[in-house]
Amino acid sequence: MNQSSAFYRQLFEVCTKLMETIQSIPQPVIAQVHGIATAAGCQLVATCDLAIAAEDARFATPGVKIGLFCSTPMVALSRAVGRKKAMEMLLTGDALSAEEAVQAGLINKAVPAKSLEEETKAMALKIASASAFTVGIGKQAFYQQIEMPQHLAYSYTKEVMSLNATAADAEEGICAFLENVSLIGKAVSNTGKAVSNTRSGRRPALAHRCALAGVFFPLVESILLGGRL
Amino acid sequence: MNQSSAFYRQLFEVCTKLMETIQSIPQPVIAQVHGIATAAGCQLVATCDLAIAAEDARFATPGVKIGLFCSTPMVALSRAVGRKKAMEMLLTGDALSAEEAVQAGLINKAVPAKSLEEETKAMALKIASASAFTVGIGKQAFYQQIEMPQHLAYSYTKEVMSLNATAADAEEGICAFLENVSLIGKAVSNTGKAVSNTRSGRRPALAHRCALAGVFFPLVESILLGGRL
Amino acid sequence: MNQSSAFYRQLFEVCTKLMETIQSIPQPVIAQVHGIATAAGCQLVATCDLAIAAEDARFATPGVKIGLFCSTPMVALSRAVGRKKAMEMLLTGDALSAEEAVQAGLINKAVPAKSLEEETKAMALKIASASAFTVGIGKQAFYQQIEMPQHLAYSYTKEVMSLNATAADAEEGICAFLENVSLIGKAVSNTGKAVSNTRSGRRPALAHRCALAGVFFPLVESILLGGRL
Repeated sequence: MNQSSAFYRQLFEVCTKLMETIQSIPQPVIAQVHGIATAAGCQLVATCDLAIAAEDARFATPGVKIGLFCSTPMVALSRAVGRKKAMEMLLTGDALSAEEAVQAGLINKAVPAKSLEEETKAMALKIASASAFTVGIGKQAFYQQIEMPQHLAYSYTKEVMSLNATAADAEEGICAFLENVSLIGKAVSNTGKAVSNTRSGRRPALAHRCALAGVFFPLVESILLGGRL
Repeated sequence: MNQSSAFYRQLFEVCTKLMETIQSIPQPVIAQVHGIATAAGCQLVATCDLAIAAEDARFATPGVKIGLFCSTPMVALSRAVGRKKAMEMLLTGDALSAEEAVQAGLINKAVPAKSLEEETKAMALKIASASAFTVGIGKQAFYQQIEMPQHLAYSYTKEVMSLNATAADAEEGICAFLENVSLIGKAVSNTGKAVSNTRSGRRPALAHRCALAGVFFPLVESILLGGRL
Repeated sequence: MNQSSAFYRQLFEVCTKLMETIQSIPQPVIAQVHGIATAAGCQLVATCDLAIAAEDARFATPGVKIGLFCSTPMVALSRAVGRKKAMEMLLTGDALSAEEAVQAGLINKAVPAKSLEEETKAMALKIASASAFTVGIGKQAFYQQIEMPQHLAYSYTKEVMSLNATAADAEEGICAFLENVSLIGKAVSNTGKAVSNTRSGRRPALAHRCALAGVFFPLVESILLGGRL
């Protein structure tokens, strides 16, 4: 090693860029976690909009054990879970089980390893069955408003929601809803639409509407740990 | 429909005004939740100081399903529960059970439907047995300090608490306490006082000291969804 | 009593100073909680970096019952647990059990009373086995970045982590790690080092690396409640 500080700054710069991009793109990103998510891998899970993990997955920020505190992962981690839990992970380096990660709010759910891909895809398809325009507006507003004092957050989201409501895409949905299509009926018809869309060639749209972060793991891990994990 | 954006801005303006008022009045507001709290109804639950729900109550921000992302409800929701849980509710539109809402921190407790009113009233009476002056100071300071950096929050609450301590109402309580009335004895005497106050005509004061938000539900729902739910 | 407001301002000033010092020193501070942690005692638990409690410990902010709302404790409490739970504790004055405190995120874990000291010391020793330089950098960065908007938090922690990475202490650890020493092997050798360090006289270093807050309790309680609890 004996890398210069310029090397490290560049490394953390690239890593941060990835994390910020995940939150700034309009498509929801779901972390599909198998195995062990450590350091920037754990940061990636904390950063993704949603996360589903295999029951035997584990989560850790173990940098402290090798003398390199997980300071950038801490930014995402401490915004996803409570302070005491974040501090415990950062100071001890100990791993959370998938079940503990659910309790802590780091991931949305833990599922049997063999149904991990299926469950993640099901959630992605459910989100993809909604209007991509609406989902994009909502996701981007989420990360903007959460950093604002509450009164400003309301001023901002009132505008976002008014524009959303007047947009054609929304009009259609709202009108259909108010023309007495029940929520349950709507859900069924949405599912039906998603399926028929799939048949008629819109399946690849999933990638545009809802990205899966699973593929990023090897990349991030290898950037930060030289591929030795 | 085909409403103008002015119509929607006015609608979300009124709704926001309600939410901000709930937090700015000195009386604690408890959401007593039966049935389904969706969209602005879910926002109302997230906004109230406290919330108790029937075990079969459900909570959702399903706007995404009809093309209208729950952007203003998101402000309250994302300040009440963790990011992953808030995102899951907002992006999928799926409902939480009352038990899940407790786990997520959206409500304080879930009780059998038949004891919902009784349990909510018991909590209201407990709070109403304390000094309305003290409760009002505390509630208002809560929402001020939570938006401040910690050091400023301490500067602010030090003043609030010093003034509270010197106020006559507090002096009485503190002195009684320090004159060796145990906490348990005090609690008993408080309860006794609340009961005797009730007998001597202070019962209506409950409305001034601790409002129940349950009655707001039909109103908010019908404002936002045209009464079709 | 009949103390002047100057007396109270001085009292809360000293108490706040203690809380801010706990977070600003580079050594992690673990609250070892037995019995009842109320008011500023509960604030102390919320303030410490980590907290372990006996299963029969309890946590409360009961000031409201004696007319003195726990306004300064609220600053720490509302940053450690969710809003609904914080409001419930503050408005009702009711105590949480140790198990509830774990669920709420107020403490890290609840253990049998007879192993409380041993478990707390084990966690302290684990942290003390890591580089004190690294731990100090990490802890201090934690409290700085958590008050920043996310983008600034990343700008800041990128610098912190780059400097940490170039420091000799880190180089050693990272290189050892990348020279194919497994995490498990490393953990074992760290433990071994801690033990041998202990033997060779570095045991007192624990106090410098990881302070136990247990001893503060009687002090804080007696400052605030006149030693009557």
